[in-house]
Amino acid sequence: MTGSIALRTLSAMEFVDITPQVQDVVTDSAVSDGVCIIYNPHTTAGLTINEGADPAVCSDLMGVFRQIIPRNYPYRHQEGNSPSHMMATLTGSSVTVLISSGSLQLGTWQRIFFCEYDGPRSRKILWKILPG
Amino acid sequence: MTGSIALRTLSAMEFVDITPQVQDVVTDSAVSDGVCIIYNPHTTAGLTINEGADPAVCSDLMGVFRQIIPRNYPYRHQEGNSPSHMMATLTGSSVTVLISSGSLQLGTWQRIFFCEYDGPRSRKILWKILPG
Amino acid sequence: MTGSIALRTLSAMEFVDITPQVQDVVTDSAVSDGVCIIYNPHTTAGLTINEGADPAVCSDLMGVFRQIIPRNYPYRHQEGNSPSHMMATLTGSSVTVLISSGSLQLGTWQRIFFCEYDGPRSRKILWKILPG
Repeated sequence: MTGSIALRTLSAMEFVDITPQVQDVVTDSAVSDGVCIIYNPHTTAGLTINEGADPAVCSDLMGVFRQIIPRNYPYRHQEGNSPSHMMATLTGSSVTVLISSGSLQLGTWQRIFFCEYDGPRSRKILWKILPG
Repeated sequence: MTGSIALRTLSAMEFVDITPQVQDVVTDSAVSDGVCIIYNPHTTAGLTINEGADPAVCSDLMGVFRQIIPRNYPYRHQEGNSPSHMMATLTGSSVTVLISSGSLQLGTWQRIFFCEYDGPRSRKILWKILPG
Repeated sequence: MTGSIALRTLSAMEFVDITPQVQDVVTDSAVSDGVCIIYNPHTTAGLTINEGADPAVCSDLMGVFRQIIPRNYPYRHQEGNSPSHMMATLTGSSVTVLISSGSLQLGTWQRIFFCEYDGPRSRKILWKILPG
């Protein structure tokens, strides 16, 4: 079971909560127990799992990313988005979530976020569910 | 095969070597070949694999995290633990280790660490073993 | 299906594109659909997926790593390579790539890189393919 989820980001930097779409995919799969792998095929975006209850958390994460990755470093990549590539590497290209009784086994405060670092853009993520 | 491991952290920031508990789970599963996924359901904690032979390595990792994540940034999240959330995103929410002949395929110096960024607290991690 | 890939790095810090070797492993496995997990057993190296079309991207990633991880912090680990251990934790110990119709499902610009942070050295990475 595999597929993709399309999304459209609206800002240069934005964390999009994709938990509902991922849970829908798990529900549709009818897999009771296993793992769900979510994969980001873009090089200026990432995936992270963090607190979703207070939107200020994601806003702070984006603020710190901007703070710690230098803007004025003598970057050689001419597209001007090297900080976005660095954020992608720091965040990672996939997340793996366990499935139990047909539900994503997220912690109480956890949500799955698509991390846009070079938007706005049309993006997609890939997913695969492995029963087990 | 899935389950959880409870742990109690004792400091605000602490890397706990959970390799023995994870190896026990693998041994108990009687799975000879496959993968073990360890998942952290908390938003101010993480999981990393790094050197365990010299405890100074983990102490240095914690020191650098404190150094690079600003304390005095104008954080909007009012709980005051935004640096801990940032460390969680930088570390990642899960680790995947290969299993061969019933053993975790760690490198010579590698150990699996639970990374407490907002302790002390009672924590738990989830695990799943996929044969294959 | 599991195995290892040997490689030799030539610099203190170097990102090596291992995509061809990983695709060969997938092809040889004859697995049409599943996931490929690549695991790094070293504590001063990592794995990342990022842009491979312009080599300046990896050069910029290495530059930013050097910039943000302090060199002159009062590190306690006496081997002098604590920045390398920190880069390993920030990058992560494994990557997971989906396989469809016998091919790695990488994005248009994505390549898989072994990240050497304490070379030059002889290194190896482990892989496992899970059909599904």
